Amino acid sequence: MTENTPHDRGRQTPDPQRRSARAERAILDAASELIVEVGFARMTMEGIASRARVGKQTIYRWWPSKSAVVLDVFNHLTGEQTGEALPDTGDLAADLRTVLRATVDEFNDPTMDRIARAFTAEIQRDTELSQRISGLLVEPGSEVYKQRLRSAIDAGEVRADADLELAVELLTGPFLKRWLMRTAPLTHAYTDDLVDMVMRSLRP
Amino acid sequence: MTENTPHDRGRQTPDPQRRSARAERAILDAASELIVEVGFARMTMEGIASRARVGKQTIYRWWPSKSAVVLDVFNHLTGEQTGEALPDTGDLAADLRTVLRATVDEFNDPTMDRIARAFTAEIQRDTELSQRISGLLVEPGSEVYKQRLRSAIDAGEVRADADLELAVELLTGPFLKRWLMRTAPLTHAYTDDLVDMVMRSLRP
Repeated sequence: MTENTPHDRGRQTPDPQRRSARAERAILDAASELIVEVGFARMTMEGIASRARVGKQTIYRWWPSKSAVVLDVFNHLTGEQTGEALPDTGDLAADLRTVLRATVDEFNDPTMDRIARAFTAEIQRDTELSQRISGLLVEPGSEVYKQRLRSAIDAGEVRADADLELAVELLTGPFLKRWLMRTAPLTHAYTDDLVDMVMRSLRP
Repeated sequence: MTENTPHDRGRQTPDPQRRSARAERAILDAASELIVEVGFARMTMEGIASRARVGKQTIYRWWPSKSAVVLDVFNHLTGEQTGEALPDTGDLAADLRTVLRATVDEFNDPTMDRIARAFTAEIQRDTELSQRISGLLVEPGSEVYKQRLRSAIDAGEVRADADLELAVELLTGPFLKRWLMRTAPLTHAYTDDLVDMVMRSLRP
């Protein structure tokens, strides 16, 4: 049961035999509370251990650093592994609608909203955290979109000269702005329209 | 010389005769320092007055609230009035390139970057501030883009059924994401490419 938990990656010394699902859950809950309450910079492995009522070594057994713990908090919230491939049914627009609707549902979850906002605030203050998160979360997240778009180029659904980096930003940036600035609700209708609009600029 | 300063708007009791350009500058500088150091929520009119070495009444004479002061900090940084119309040369793509290149230059200014990040962090924490800023800064900012796009629809440069709210998000969201997540540098080449991409989805 612990074989496929999302935080297998990124650990230096995975040891599935010694895991306790309850301690693991307590550690992730503690980390998600602390990032909201005190922020990433002032959060420590000791603080997480204390709140989760586990020894600090229990955390280090599974995660090499507090960034690794926080990355797993996100992975658990979204129910995805970082870098997990997007669906590929052969219909790019349909697949993008599926993915962005799921993203809407995630960001409309109050816990996810609270933690993602705390994290967004931290990233503004902390350039080092920002770079680590960019490498661990944002770039792998963009890469799976680019992989799906490359497959769509092969299938003739997307023009071969499309700038894929920019295409991913067009799909995810408007969503981020609307969520960040709270300018309008995030709905499935909204992301469906977004996909239609972006597809117009990507088609051959 | 004080007639056309950008913060004439939004004051309840403008009194150009009694303004002191030096006090005004000191107040805006103090506000921009405090928002970075203590954040918007803990910033007070007293604190601004104290740091600017002016009486609190001097601030209230020109600005009704701390949000109004902070809005003017942004207006001064960008050298624009909130809600100022976009250029309209009859060539939408060229005008958008001009505007977004200027935005790149603004966000590459270290002072602007620092203040805008502090503000972005505050908005995540403070829903009330977020709503005020949305009404004072984000929505008027979007509206000027929409006006320019409506003029382009009349000129036949943009399809009449384009969703203008979404079009503005496509022009500004990718930029915001790249800046926020620090995933890649903001350059004129980048925003030029962004305009090309968005124009493809807007043309009739």
